[in-house]
Amino acid sequence: MDLNADLGEGFGHWTLGDDKALLSVVTSANIACGYHAGDADTMRETCIRAAESGVAVGAHVGYRDLAGFGRRFIDVAPDTLTNEVLAQLGALAAFAKAAGTRISYVKPHGALYNTLVRHESQADAVVDAVRLFDPALAVLGPPGAVWLKRAEVAGLRVWHEAFADRAYTAAATLLPRTEPGAVLRDPAEIAARCVQLATEGWVRSTTGRPVRIAADSICVHGDTPNAVDIARAVRTALESAGVEVARVESPLRHTRQAV
Amino acid sequence: MDLNADLGEGFGHWTLGDDKALLSVVTSANIACGYHAGDADTMRETCIRAAESGVAVGAHVGYRDLAGFGRRFIDVAPDTLTNEVLAQLGALAAFAKAAGTRISYVKPHGALYNTLVRHESQADAVVDAVRLFDPALAVLGPPGAVWLKRAEVAGLRVWHEAFADRAYTAAATLLPRTEPGAVLRDPAEIAARCVQLATEGWVRSTTGRPVRIAADSICVHGDTPNAVDIARAVRTALESAGVEVARVESPLRHTRQAV
Amino acid sequence: MDLNADLGEGFGHWTLGDDKALLSVVTSANIACGYHAGDADTMRETCIRAAESGVAVGAHVGYRDLAGFGRRFIDVAPDTLTNEVLAQLGALAAFAKAAGTRISYVKPHGALYNTLVRHESQADAVVDAVRLFDPALAVLGPPGAVWLKRAEVAGLRVWHEAFADRAYTAAATLLPRTEPGAVLRDPAEIAARCVQLATEGWVRSTTGRPVRIAADSICVHGDTPNAVDIARAVRTALESAGVEVARVESPLRHTRQAV
Amino acid sequence: MDLNADLGEGFGHWTLGDDKALLSVVTSANIACGYHAGDADTMRETCIRAAESGVAVGAHVGYRDLAGFGRRFIDVAPDTLTNEVLAQLGALAAFAKAAGTRISYVKPHGALYNTLVRHESQADAVVDAVRLFDPALAVLGPPGAVWLKRAEVAGLRVWHEAFADRAYTAAATLLPRTEPGAVLRDPAEIAARCVQLATEGWVRSTTGRPVRIAADSICVHGDTPNAVDIARAVRTALESAGVEVARVESPLRHTRQAV
Repeated sequence: MDLNADLGEGFGHWTLGDDKALLSVVTSANIACGYHAGDADTMRETCIRAAESGVAVGAHVGYRDLAGFGRRFIDVAPDTLTNEVLAQLGALAAFAKAAGTRISYVKPHGALYNTLVRHESQADAVVDAVRLFDPALAVLGPPGAVWLKRAEVAGLRVWHEAFADRAYTAAATLLPRTEPGAVLRDPAEIAARCVQLATEGWVRSTTGRPVRIAADSICVHGDTPNAVDIARAVRTALESAGVEVARVESPLRHTRQAV
Repeated sequence: MDLNADLGEGFGHWTLGDDKALLSVVTSANIACGYHAGDADTMRETCIRAAESGVAVGAHVGYRDLAGFGRRFIDVAPDTLTNEVLAQLGALAAFAKAAGTRISYVKPHGALYNTLVRHESQADAVVDAVRLFDPALAVLGPPGAVWLKRAEVAGLRVWHEAFADRAYTAAATLLPRTEPGAVLRDPAEIAARCVQLATEGWVRSTTGRPVRIAADSICVHGDTPNAVDIARAVRTALESAGVEVARVESPLRHTRQAV
Repeated sequence: MDLNADLGEGFGHWTLGDDKALLSVVTSANIACGYHAGDADTMRETCIRAAESGVAVGAHVGYRDLAGFGRRFIDVAPDTLTNEVLAQLGALAAFAKAAGTRISYVKPHGALYNTLVRHESQADAVVDAVRLFDPALAVLGPPGAVWLKRAEVAGLRVWHEAFADRAYTAAATLLPRTEPGAVLRDPAEIAARCVQLATEGWVRSTTGRPVRIAADSICVHGDTPNAVDIARAVRTALESAGVEVARVESPLRHTRQAV
Repeated sequence: MDLNADLGEGFGHWTLGDDKALLSVVTSANIACGYHAGDADTMRETCIRAAESGVAVGAHVGYRDLAGFGRRFIDVAPDTLTNEVLAQLGALAAFAKAAGTRISYVKPHGALYNTLVRHESQADAVVDAVRLFDPALAVLGPPGAVWLKRAEVAGLRVWHEAFADRAYTAAATLLPRTEPGAVLRDPAEIAARCVQLATEGWVRSTTGRPVRIAADSICVHGDTPNAVDIARAVRTALESAGVEVARVESPLRHTRQAV
């Protein structure tokens, strides 16, 4: 099972999260590409650290909205969105290469993540960008998202993720953050759920009924107070249960990043 | 002789210059990479048009300063400047590849162009970025610039440029724009000087004395009222004088852009 | 009848429209406040010119989106929108005062203009900002807009506007720009419609049926090729028809701008 | 003796420092105005908290450089700098008024603070902005700064500040941060120096020699790990020594903020 987390989310003088600690726990890093967070220095440093740790580099692409941290829907034209994702991929690829690694996958951030679950023209726009940039890249998102279906049709490799600290409804969708109990906080409980997910392929939903979730990766958050503790608890529990914690793909480097 | 011009200098709703006309005249396009001008849409479109026209793509890199169009010196730390140039190169490379072409060279813009003539640590910073990104790229600037000397030492290919519409002092430096007569406006006069430069390797300086300038490329401006007329006059005059107007390198595509 | 136009829409090195010419025609200037267009220099200069011309200063407030020129809906939180409008009003007020004038009214721009026609929480957010800043300000928008109804309830003075160059449906709404014939281009036709509107209170709709529109102001655009010609034709026709072209309020200066 | 600190230095999702704690200790708040840090939400919230705490509101104005936190010199044209300071003052004034308070003084931030010590045309530019905005505002900076001399000539009220945690040379200038010992870290030592400064008007310099410093205000920093501890230690020590800790001016509100 892969563990992914959002990293490199500072901007200029501002920092966010404990990247160094998280990089010792996760196997995949979703690195902000400067549109919703991140700048040239954070991309460089995060790529170097990810390469040193053997962690897979993912492009965490978002809306052009530093002031809103990419958390507000923007009704951007699909052509522009394609180009904005291309710009983010290109920038991050330069830093990945300078660090001796390469981008492995693309994961949308924030409002774009949520929008692509259903918004068809923005979904197509992002898929177009990935294909244009490098059709060998994987895409990472929630099971059932429109954009992953389009990605599949377009011939991209699709990876699905589950959330370690989020409650699921009986329909296998995330309980909205505005609902009580939507975000789990107890490291032990979260770790136990992740073991169940990894070994048996299901989690208990809010109704008590188990729901099946096929996940290639588990997302652990980096911006909550005890984020690192939770991430460590999840990793330790998985390994104790005999689950190999490893990136989805081995970092074969026989091909160069396509740009 | 190569002819280069600054292109893709719009931003969002704002446009600048007549890119389409200029692309039918020049052989190299210095394309803004989003830091001082340009955005994802302009980079995409300008790369596509350059590719269609067989025009070489140059990365026109600048300070992070959209509000100042990159025309103000910023005392940015060298490490940050290296990373900011990397980000610009990576972004443009993604659009060049999507358009079926690649970046051929790097030219600094505005205040960065002027600063790199003498500022050693910023000069080293930009050279580092080019080397990290792709040591096969050429760098383009004025003869004598510190950064070009550093680039040469670093093993990069160095191309020198002269300015079609600027007066030169007897020391072969540009007469500052603040001086009267610094910018030439008559297309015929400018064209004649360019022919002299291309065929004999010198121009008449402000003292009347000829000064020797070895140029691989002539820069024509795109943002003056009769910019396109001047560019056309220069090209026509060069061709009439038997000078081949062509990009510095033929667009061999046997190697893929390194990112 | 008041004539209003969007002005001060440049940014940094980029310009847009012929502000100088338009200021000799209109009686109210909607000045961009730096969020979707405009910067400190454009606000200063446009306020000075408006004051010299006796033109009323309106705050043209928009989403924080320079890259999109404020033309994309952003799902910004109402509290943040209130604060962002306050920031825009405060900045423009500083320049208005430095130019010896004051803000008279507030008009939303682009996607915010369209959104406030129906979006209740964003409508309330903008009304709150105006009230907090200066309850003596007027608000300018299309008849029927939700935000103008809320403004009325809040005790603000409400001014309605019609568009000189846009086709109206039989329901007195604008024909969407995507429809053929949505934007009128003939100065004479546009001028004649404006006279009818000003003297008789109606325009002919797309079905041929006249529709009643009570307007305090007519908006002329500044960014189309023959914008100034149209604006001049409208003003000349109105004056020839005996309509006094004047700002909605006389510029009484017995009260100081409230900040 | 007044105590001032930099506050409201977050941006969007990013926070910086413990504003709430500091507002219970200081008597003057230098509030970021959105150019180097701060946004509409932080300005609103910080003004409200300052008003509730009876803390004086200062406009912490800086270069337009969010990516660099205003810490890099920018060679901005004086006219533009005047206008950019006006825009910052206007925006903050709107929030101060909405919170029932007003701007009392102006303090430059970061690289602008350092530049104005000697750079004559930028110094004049900032003084012009303050005069245009409200000649009743005070200006706050280090003794001897060129811009404060110009402010005095221009008829502005000038307040001088000393730094609680910085070493002074025998020439009464700050030991550069790059020198060892430039920044003091021990709360007790810092507090003792502040008492000496407040009661006797001198501090011990790096050579051991006392240097005379006439300060109206002491600046405590907010962004170091034990910032709040230091600020509290300073305040407690001053009060124990019988020094009244109070804003430079009482918050008379008989005049409205001039915008």
